[in-house]
Amino acid sequence: MVYLDYAASTPVSEEALHVFQQLSKDCYGNASSLHDAGGKAHDILTYSRQSLAAMIEGEPNGVYFTSGGTESNLLAIQSITNGLPAHKKHVITTSVEHPSVHHAVSSLERLGVKVTIIEPNQDGIITEDILKEAILPETGLVSIQHANSETGIIQPLAELAPLLKERNILFHTDAVQTFGKIRVSIKELGVDAVSISSHKVYAPKGAGAVYMGTQVPWKPLYAGAVQENGLRPGTVNVPCIGAFIAASEQMMLRLDEQHTLDEQLRDYFLQQVKLRKLPVRTLQDNDNRRMLPHIIGCFFEGFEGQYVMLACNRHGICVSTGSACASGYHHPSPAVKALRLSDRDALQFIRLSFGWQSSQDDIDQLLHTFEHLQKEKKGA
Amino acid sequence: MVYLDYAASTPVSEEALHVFQQLSKDCYGNASSLHDAGGKAHDILTYSRQSLAAMIEGEPNGVYFTSGGTESNLLAIQSITNGLPAHKKHVITTSVEHPSVHHAVSSLERLGVKVTIIEPNQDGIITEDILKEAILPETGLVSIQHANSETGIIQPLAELAPLLKERNILFHTDAVQTFGKIRVSIKELGVDAVSISSHKVYAPKGAGAVYMGTQVPWKPLYAGAVQENGLRPGTVNVPCIGAFIAASEQMMLRLDEQHTLDEQLRDYFLQQVKLRKLPVRTLQDNDNRRMLPHIIGCFFEGFEGQYVMLACNRHGICVSTGSACASGYHHPSPAVKALRLSDRDALQFIRLSFGWQSSQDDIDQLLHTFEHLQKEKKGA
Repeated sequence: MVYLDYAASTPVSEEALHVFQQLSKDCYGNASSLHDAGGKAHDILTYSRQSLAAMIEGEPNGVYFTSGGTESNLLAIQSITNGLPAHKKHVITTSVEHPSVHHAVSSLERLGVKVTIIEPNQDGIITEDILKEAILPETGLVSIQHANSETGIIQPLAELAPLLKERNILFHTDAVQTFGKIRVSIKELGVDAVSISSHKVYAPKGAGAVYMGTQVPWKPLYAGAVQENGLRPGTVNVPCIGAFIAASEQMMLRLDEQHTLDEQLRDYFLQQVKLRKLPVRTLQDNDNRRMLPHIIGCFFEGFEGQYVMLACNRHGICVSTGSACASGYHHPSPAVKALRLSDRDALQFIRLSFGWQSSQDDIDQLLHTFEHLQKEKKGA
Repeated sequence: MVYLDYAASTPVSEEALHVFQQLSKDCYGNASSLHDAGGKAHDILTYSRQSLAAMIEGEPNGVYFTSGGTESNLLAIQSITNGLPAHKKHVITTSVEHPSVHHAVSSLERLGVKVTIIEPNQDGIITEDILKEAILPETGLVSIQHANSETGIIQPLAELAPLLKERNILFHTDAVQTFGKIRVSIKELGVDAVSISSHKVYAPKGAGAVYMGTQVPWKPLYAGAVQENGLRPGTVNVPCIGAFIAASEQMMLRLDEQHTLDEQLRDYFLQQVKLRKLPVRTLQDNDNRRMLPHIIGCFFEGFEGQYVMLACNRHGICVSTGSACASGYHHPSPAVKALRLSDRDALQFIRLSFGWQSSQDDIDQLLHTFEHLQKEKKGA
């Protein structure tokens, strides 16, 4: 199988799986239990908090573990808003966020919180002007993704942050697609809170984290909850968290190397598309934006994305038509629509995403399938 | 280490760990992805739903997977109440539930839902009379645990169910402590909805399930969520769910055998306490109630539970002073207080809980420590 859908989920690394196994055997106590079996689990958690904090240039006591990226977004946005004073209950987010961010703000709206959804410009970017226009005196929180999971477009968070800081507005970012792929530093980005997930970084599914700096006056959704300082009630999944941290540490070590590999594969794909004269446009054709190197959003002229995805699947190749968390929907993705494309064009969208095991051979097989589809069509 | 805290968390069985490993390697696709890597994950989910449904005599499409018992309780209670018509928004639960049930109803109260918390009788039992007295014309949901995690007291759900059915009131039970230990049958208990958890049945932490019969008109907390039919947004943790089901299947096969073993260990403990003339009272001294055989709630006269727990820990024995999810609190547990004990007596509470690896030798070591404590005190 040729797997070109690493942005949906990654395989688990041998090392992460080994750590998971060891901790499942040695460290099965409940981290809340006050005996040594619980203490051992608690020690792993302490180490994990320190390690993750170091990776993102944060403080260990700002790290809260969750069950995954969706839960991180839900808890971060709701808990931060819950802690805002009554005169600051206005939240700004964008139309291109992960569904979980939209779930979170919809649920806030039902509680009477005012929400503004801003649209990026035609390049998919939230500019300072776009953000500034949406800010109200009562704005308390802004949540903007670090990079989009479908298009790979990176938002200029560091440029937006000063606008918010000078107005005392808290800044959250969903960094699920960027953590472990490009540098995610609290300090450099100028954000107050971050969401990340385990299964995008070669760790088992089942863990994630929220980072919230000590300046964030968040308030638990469930008063009286004890675990993770009240952010997330429920037994803490220590073996999975340990594996998540082990996998993340590996990602950090090979960050530059993998970045280069991803760029090489991307460039090879772009070059081959031209050489083979395939009617494939990519988002990389427009260089007005920074993009994640391992995600290529493309459009195969004359074919619906869904059709191409299924045809690739018949040839043993896994690609995607967008975020897995919104699959099953047949309307065009908001992130793709935001690029000012017609519905027809947006429905042609296909996402390729690379990872550790990806090779030129994978790309060749994909392009071979594209050529095959093209020939079939001409023959028809 | 002598581990007598299986009710807090169980070790992971070899078989469950093996399944987890295999699925992490073979089945890492996102179950929402429409290609074969996603399809494989989806097939495991389908099998898991069928298997779990069969274990509890429910229907496969009533099984919704979650990240654990706490989340199961939170989602079940909130989603069911969310689906109740406006004139049925009254929820009844008990004072002895797991903290997650209290989190759920508190959050409903903030949304304007009327909540009644009922107290069990002095034997820790919710009787028909107690329940009947709390029912209002607008009662829409009742949530009563199957058994208490601290005392092991089993509630007579099957006797309570007809009261609710004839009034068209939905019935949810938290079966986290009973599933895999005693028979949990939707049909026999007469309940509409059930919560369960993976890490109490020798599976990895990180999975749980809600069962809701098709007659339950629940409504998602997050409209538009796609996974688990909208109950829980977020990538479905297929490897953990597969391991959870494998472990549960093992539990079902050895249910009777383990039950007998637990009874033998319990009886051995009770007999030895008498033989050794230890001033230890147990909840088993009162036979007016049915109790889980693997949980012994006891009181070591003259010692605070916290002291005994820490002393046992120094001797390499893990016991608990109550629910791990409420540890760190130093007030007596509501489940123990409900037995009409003084604060002083309630603070003497210790919970022992047995599992697969437990033996008479473990009990002997525990009793030896008790004797040691007793001698120390006399000597002092």
